[in-house]
This record gives sequence, C-alpha cells and structure tokens, in this order.
Amino acid sequence: MRNAPLGFFDSGVGGLTVVRAAQRLLPHEDIVYLGDTARVPYGSKSPETIRDFAAEDVRFLLSHHVKAIVIACNTATAHALPALRETFRVPILGVIEPGVEATLADPDTDRVGIIATRGTIRSHAYQHALAQRKTGLIIHAQSAPLLVPLIEEDWLDHAATTAALHTYLDPMVDKGIDALLLACTHYPLLVPTLEKFLPSDVRLIDSATTCAEHLKAELDRLDLLNDSEDRGKLQIHLTDLSEQFEMLARRFLAHPPGKIRRAIL
Amino acid sequence: MRNAPLGFFDSGVGGLTVVRAAQRLLPHEDIVYLGDTARVPYGSKSPETIRDFAAEDVRFLLSHHVKAIVIACNTATAHALPALRETFRVPILGVIEPGVEATLADPDTDRVGIIATRGTIRSHAYQHALAQRKTGLIIHAQSAPLLVPLIEEDWLDHAATTAALHTYLDPMVDKGIDALLLACTHYPLLVPTLEKFLPSDVRLIDSATTCAEHLKAELDRLDLLNDSEDRGKLQIHLTDLSEQFEMLARRFLAHPPGKIRRAIL
Repeated sequence: MRNAPLGFFDSGVGGLTVVRAAQRLLPHEDIVYLGDTARVPYGSKSPETIRDFAAEDVRFLLSHHVKAIVIACNTATAHALPALRETFRVPILGVIEPGVEATLADPDTDRVGIIATRGTIRSHAYQHALAQRKTGLIIHAQSAPLLVPLIEEDWLDHAATTAALHTYLDPMVDKGIDALLLACTHYPLLVPTLEKFLPSDVRLIDSATTCAEHLKAELDRLDLLNDSEDRGKLQIHLTDLSEQFEMLARRFLAHPPGKIRRAIL
Repeated sequence: MRNAPLGFFDSGVGGLTVVRAAQRLLPHEDIVYLGDTARVPYGSKSPETIRDFAAEDVRFLLSHHVKAIVIACNTATAHALPALRETFRVPILGVIEPGVEATLADPDTDRVGIIATRGTIRSHAYQHALAQRKTGLIIHAQSAPLLVPLIEEDWLDHAATTAALHTYLDPMVDKGIDALLLACTHYPLLVPTLEKFLPSDVRLIDSATTCAEHLKAELDRLDLLNDSEDRGKLQIHLTDLSEQFEMLARRFLAHPPGKIRRAIL
C-alpha cells in the first residue's frame, strides 16, 4: 500500500505546481495526475456541478489504485472536500487548510489578503477557516479572475498584468496587509512579479508549497511514505489534449511532462 | 414547421450577442438557446472534443423540435460545422461564412485582420474561407485569448484591456488593414472600445450581426420564416447555472434573460 502512487487532480494543469512542489519534497513517490481539461475551468461553475465533477475525478484516480488523493485545485477543495471525504474512504487532502495554517504560523499576522478565482472567494472557505482560527483577524478577500488567463498567456511582466494587479491589490495594500495568500494553484508562477509589485514587508503564502509540506506530514503520520529509493514516476492524464495544455504543463511543472494520456471519465 | 423555434448553441453565453442581433432582425421567431457553460470555453480544447460536444448540443436542440440551428460560436463552427451537417438533416448555419462574406462585400478590401480565440485562429477556417474567395488578399490572423476574460469582467475601458489590444493589434495596424473581422461572439461588446482604439478608416465586421442577417436570408430562402405576429419567445438553457453566467447573459443580451433553465445533455 505504501508504495502505491499518490493521486492528484485539478480542473486543468494549474495543479501541476502542487505536483512540482511535492516532487521536490517527496522524490520517491509515484504520482498519477488527472487534469479535467475538457471542463476547465471549475472556478466559474456552480458548487453542485463542481462536486459532481470532483467525484468523477476521484473515481478515476481510485481506478489507478492510489493510496491518497490531493485536490490540487482551490475551487474543488472549497466546494467538494467535505462531500468527497464522506463518500470515499481513501485519505483526501485539500489545499486550503495548509495555506491557512502557513498564513497564521507567524503570530504577528493580523491582516491577511487573499486572492483567488471568483468561485474560491465566493465559497468563503478561506475566510471562514482563517476567522475560525484567529479572532480579530482582518481579512481582505479579492477575486482576481484575470490572473489565470494572464498567467496562461505567460504575460507575467506584461502591462496588462500590472494594470490588473493594481485593480486587485491596491485597495488591500493601501489598507495594509501582513500576508497575501495566493489561493489558486496557478499563482506560484506569479511570485517573482508579485515580489516586485508588493511592499517588501508583505509575506507571500503560496498554496502549492504549503500543500506539499502538509502532504508529507500526513503521509508520515499515516505511515504511507514510499520506502523505495528510486525516483518516483509521474503519469499525467488529461480529459482533453491540446498543444496549449501540453505547453502549459511544461511551464507549470518546470520540466518536460513526458507522455500525456487522454483520460475518459 | 415554419412556426417551430430556432435553435442556437454556444459553449457559453457569448452566443447571446447573436441571439440579440437575431431578435432585432427577426422579432417573431421563437428561440431556444443552449449554452454549454459546464464545459465552457471550447476555444482552448481539441477539435475532436469540440466536435463531440457540438453533436451533444445539437441533439439537445433537436429534442426541442427546432426548425433550424445556428452555431453561435466561432470555435464550434470552425471545427464542427461540416461534421454536424453530415450527421444531422436539420439546416445548420455557422458564424464564419456570413462574416467572411460581409468582409469581402466591399471590393476595395485588400488587407484583412482577424482576431479570435486560439482555437478559431488555429483552425484556419477564416483564413481559408477568405483566401478561397479572393486571391491576393493579405490576411493578418491574431489569436487574442485575453479578450474574452476581459470582456466577461466588463473591463471594456480598463488599462489592462488597452495594454492587451496594443499587443494584439499594433502589429497588424502598423502593416495596414482595411477591415478587422471580430471572429468571436464575445467581441461585439468591445466595439465602442475598438472604435476609439483603431484608425478611423478600419472597417469593423462583427460576426454576430452578419450571422443574424445571413440567418434571415436563409430562412426566407427555405420558406421557414415564422408567420406569427406575436413577439417571439426566448428560452435559455445552460448546462451549468451560476450568478456569474446570469449576470453575463444580461449583458450579452442587453435585456433581462427571463428564467434560465438547467440543461442536462
């Protein structure tokens, strides 16, 4: 069981930033990744639809005999995690709890900004989880729907991106924030741009890295760490294949993705 | 038969700009609209997947006994129209031919710009149709994937939109174009912005209006014009419902959409 693969799923290829972080921390784990690119994005869809899609994604990964599942998608974590945990017996981890915990790890954090897709912000999942853990916390939540398409275009230093960041971030920066939580798995690619854009005393929390750290701790706790000394293998399955997705997969993973397969859900 | 409704489909709600143009020209026609919002956008997906989705969309409309079908989506027209016409017997119209004919209606048009989603540009459907009709035509085709998300955000006058338009349009404007073909059903909302942005001698061709004109001519030719004197009714079905889609439907239609139903394909 401990040498079975880990399953990851996302609405598209953004979740590969979580895979990349996991590969660094857990180099011996085999990974099966499912990107539901035929129905990407989930962020603008309704909670019921997102729950239906996520259950299909989990079933696909279970058919690959995974030992645990990571929802490498903020929107799906926000809307589907509790329902999935009720339905399936495999351990299922989301990206929200780890990001929230990392944000509050510094006890001087009193004012937190969150940026994410519209679906994630509207779910109030981050706001709720933060407020539950620390009373009196000031939270500025901002949906930033243009950032995913801008990142997918690789317009990281484009004037359009700067203009969008001004609209999304100036109001919360003017009010003052101690940390900015990047609550979308696409956003790690924007970190260099954000480091230039934001005041230097704002801490950036990226949910891909924090999720991988949490995954390692959970596997250890459940005694599920792979004990092989070989380099883990990565299998990528997408519900729709296109040149665009292959190009994005390369950028999100930061290395060539190998053969990508078409998944039928 | 002539008093049966017209069927329209699109990957999302952008095709409502075509419905709006059709309602102006054909006020007595009943319309059944299907937006496949659970799987929007089609523009980044593969031709095979787009053809499968489009066939499901057509079957849904046929179950509503429509007399003719309009593919109110450039990507689906580009990849699926010939296959759909082979499979189904109902008259099926796309948005490409009408846009191409309107572009070349002015015989002095020698240099044409096209902007569209990546899927439409990559299909070469517009480039091919234009080149077939006029030898020696100079064509500048540019995929403009950020424009749909910018329009959906209603950032029509935002600095991010201007920055994106500079990247997409400056190269073709510098080389010189007589007409710019807006080959995406979202783009009619950007016409006022483009009129300010472009040199005044560039003609704008919007595929929603040209498609509605072509539809009227075709219905007349096939003796399928509705002879009722009542105002036509519009029924909107979406495969996923969300606040965001309802808000967009209102903007694209330019009037309240009435009750929107959830469609199961």
